[in-house]
Amino acid sequence: MSRIVMKFGGTSMAGIERIRNVAERVRREAEDGNQVLVVVSAMAGETDRLVQLCREAAPLHDPTEYDVVVASGEQVTAGLLAMTLQAMGVKARSFMGWQLVRASGVHGNARVEAIEAATLDEALSGGTVAVIPGFQGVSTDGRLATLGRGGSDTSAVAIAAGVKADRCDIYTDVDGVYTTDPRIVPRARKLAQVTFEEMLELAGVGAKVLQVRSVGLAMRENLPLRVLSAFEDKPGTDIVAELSGEQMERNLIAGIAADRNEARITLTGVPDQPGTVAAVIGPVAEAGIQVDMIVHAATPNTGSSDLTFTVPRPSLAQAMSVIEQRKSAIGYADVIHDDAVAKVSIVGVGIRSNPQLAAQMFDVLAERQINLLAVSSSEIKVSALIAEEQLDLAVRVLHTAFGLDEEQAA
Amino acid sequence: MSRIVMKFGGTSMAGIERIRNVAERVRREAEDGNQVLVVVSAMAGETDRLVQLCREAAPLHDPTEYDVVVASGEQVTAGLLAMTLQAMGVKARSFMGWQLVRASGVHGNARVEAIEAATLDEALSGGTVAVIPGFQGVSTDGRLATLGRGGSDTSAVAIAAGVKADRCDIYTDVDGVYTTDPRIVPRARKLAQVTFEEMLELAGVGAKVLQVRSVGLAMRENLPLRVLSAFEDKPGTDIVAELSGEQMERNLIAGIAADRNEARITLTGVPDQPGTVAAVIGPVAEAGIQVDMIVHAATPNTGSSDLTFTVPRPSLAQAMSVIEQRKSAIGYADVIHDDAVAKVSIVGVGIRSNPQLAAQMFDVLAERQINLLAVSSSEIKVSALIAEEQLDLAVRVLHTAFGLDEEQAA
Repeated sequence: MSRIVMKFGGTSMAGIERIRNVAERVRREAEDGNQVLVVVSAMAGETDRLVQLCREAAPLHDPTEYDVVVASGEQVTAGLLAMTLQAMGVKARSFMGWQLVRASGVHGNARVEAIEAATLDEALSGGTVAVIPGFQGVSTDGRLATLGRGGSDTSAVAIAAGVKADRCDIYTDVDGVYTTDPRIVPRARKLAQVTFEEMLELAGVGAKVLQVRSVGLAMRENLPLRVLSAFEDKPGTDIVAELSGEQMERNLIAGIAADRNEARITLTGVPDQPGTVAAVIGPVAEAGIQVDMIVHAATPNTGSSDLTFTVPRPSLAQAMSVIEQRKSAIGYADVIHDDAVAKVSIVGVGIRSNPQLAAQMFDVLAERQINLLAVSSSEIKVSALIAEEQLDLAVRVLHTAFGLDEEQAA
Repeated sequence: MSRIVMKFGGTSMAGIERIRNVAERVRREAEDGNQVLVVVSAMAGETDRLVQLCREAAPLHDPTEYDVVVASGEQVTAGLLAMTLQAMGVKARSFMGWQLVRASGVHGNARVEAIEAATLDEALSGGTVAVIPGFQGVSTDGRLATLGRGGSDTSAVAIAAGVKADRCDIYTDVDGVYTTDPRIVPRARKLAQVTFEEMLELAGVGAKVLQVRSVGLAMRENLPLRVLSAFEDKPGTDIVAELSGEQMERNLIAGIAADRNEARITLTGVPDQPGTVAAVIGPVAEAGIQVDMIVHAATPNTGSSDLTFTVPRPSLAQAMSVIEQRKSAIGYADVIHDDAVAKVSIVGVGIRSNPQLAAQMFDVLAERQINLLAVSSSEIKVSALIAEEQLDLAVRVLHTAFGLDEEQAA
C-alpha cells in the first residue's frame, strides 16, 4: 500500500465530463489499495475570469481580498470531484485549504508552511480519498491565502511532503518529460526517468512541464514525482533523486534544452582588475534582473578586457539603462547589445563524471559552423550561447549526436 | 450613530458596475457615521450555475459537498465588494462565513446558530465596514454549510440580531412593500410602514418580497427591517413591531393579498361527530401536505356533514390519494376537488379591534356577485376562497373599498 498525492491541472478539471475522467483515475488508484489525496486546480479559464473581475473592481486591489475571490475556483472543483467520486462508490470528501494548509508570506503569493497531517491521516486510514483545492491555505491571520499563479504543483508537493506521501503524481496535458522540445525535434523521446537536478536544469532552461519551485521542493523533501498525461493511459516520467539500475544504462545526456529568452550585453574596454565584474553585475542584479551567463575575457597585456553577460530578453532595455547610467563608475569603452541570441544546453547527470561530453558538444556545433558566443557549465549542464537563427539546427544535431533520437519504427 | 446591516441580493451584485453602485450606497451609510455590515448574495445566475454543476456531477449528491460548491458564489462577491469599497477610500474587509457564522442543522439547509460578535465588534469599532457572504456558515463539524436557497435574507437578519444591530436594510429589486400586487392593481400604493405580523400575512399569502423565515426571525428578535430598492434612491418600507404615531392614522387595512396556489377538496356525507375533522386532516398533514382553510358544516338533523379544506395546488393529487385510501376509515359519501380556486385576503392590524371590517369585505364581494367558497380569519387577516377567475376583480374592488388606491395626480 502506498500513499499517493495525485494533482490535476485546470485543463483536466474543465467541465463535468473531464472531472469524471479524473475521478475514474482516482478510483483506480484507490481500488489498488492506495491511500489517495487529490489536489485540484480550478477549471481552465476560471482563475483568469476571477482575476479579471478583481482588476475591474479595483486596479490596485488588496491582495487579501484578491485571495478571497480567486480561491473560490478550486473550492468548486474540489467539491465537484468529491461528489463525483462518491457517485462512483468511492469514499471521498473535500477539505478546504483553510481547514488544513497553513500558509505564510504575502497574500497572493504565500508559501505552504505546514499541513494538518493528523486530520488527513485519520481520513486516509479510514479509506477516504481526500480532495484538496490546490493553490491555497489559511494565513497566520486566519484568512484565505493563495500561493501565487500556477502554485498548484507546489501545493501538491508540499501537501505530499506534509503527509509523508510515497509519491506525488502530476497529471498534465503533456504525457511526460521529453529529451527536447518535440516541436524542434519530432523524434524527441519521452524519458522514463530523470533526476531532480536534470529536471531543474531542463525546466530552468525552457522545458516547461512543471513549476521549477515544485521540483526544488520535491528534491529537498526527497519526494519522487511522476509526470503523466491526464487524458491518455501511458506511462509518464518519474522524477527521482537517483536513476534506478536499468536507467543507469540510459544515455549520459538526459536531454537538450533550448531557450530563446536571452539577450546579450557586451562591455568592451573595461579595466582588467579585481571588482570589475561586481561593479557591472551588482547594479543589474540589484535592479531585480537575473543575470545568467557571464564571460570575462582579458585581452593580454592591454590592462583592459571585454565583459559579456546575458539577461532575460524582456529585461534588456532596463539592463542597458542601468549600465549606461553607470558608465563613468565602471569605466568601459563601449556597450553592445544583441537580442537575436539563444541558449542551447546539454543536461545530464553523466556530465559530472565525463568531462569529454562538453568537448563533444563543442565539436558537434563547430562541425555545423555554429559559433559559440559564450559558454557556461555546471555539474550536470553545459550551455552555449549562439545566434538565435541557428538554435533549431543546434538542438537537432546535438539530439542526434548524443543518441537521443527515437528509434524509427521498422 | 447606528449599527446597520445592509443586505444586497443577486440582482444588485450582478457584475462590477452594479457592485460599484452597491459600494456607493454603503459608503454613504458609513460616511453618515454608522457602523455598517454588508451581507451579499452571489451574482444573479451564479448559484443556479453551481447547482447545475452539482446535478451534472452527481444527481444524488452529498449535501456537504454541495455546500462547498455553492458557497463559493457569495465568497466571490464579498471579496469584490470589499476591494471596491477600499478603492473608494472606505475602510472595509470581508469575513468568510466559516470565520464567524456558526450554523446547525442539515447541510444545504442549515440555520444560523451564533455569530462571532466579538470579531465583528472589533472591526466595526475600528471604523471598518464588514462584508459577509450571505447564505453560509460553518457547521458543528467544522465544514462549510449553506442555509438553503434564498437564505441570504435570513442570514442577514440573524447576523443583525447577533451583533445587536439597530436595523437591517434589505436592498432588493422591488422598492418596498405594496398594498397589493401592482400587476393586478396598477394603483397599488407603497406602504411607509407595515408591522411584522402584517408582513408575515402578506408574505405568507403571496406578496413575496422577503423570505417569511427572515420576517419571523426579525419579529422574534424585535429587529426593525427596511425593504428598499437597490437601484433607485427612494424611501422603502419599514417593517416594525408597532406602527409609529403618524402611521396609526394609516388605513386600518395594510393590504390585499392574492394567492392562486390553492386547491379545494370537499368530502360530503361525513359523520357529524367528534373526531371527524381529525380523521381527515390528520393523515393529510402526516403526508407533509400543508392544510390551510378548513370548513366543517353540518346539515341539521341528518347526522352527516360536509367537510371542505384547501391544500397547495401542487399537492392536490397526493392529498386526493390519501383521502381515497382512507375512504372506509373516514366514512364519507363522495369527494369533490377543484383547483380553479384562489384566496383573497385583507390584512391589517386594524382588524383586531374592528370586527366590522370582515363584514365590510363580505359585502363588497357580494355586491360584485363573488361567491365565497370558504372563509377563514385570524387576528389580523380575513381570507375568502373564491373562484380563480374572479380573483383579480376581487382584489381590485377590495383595494378600492378599503381606501388603498394611490391618489391620482391632479
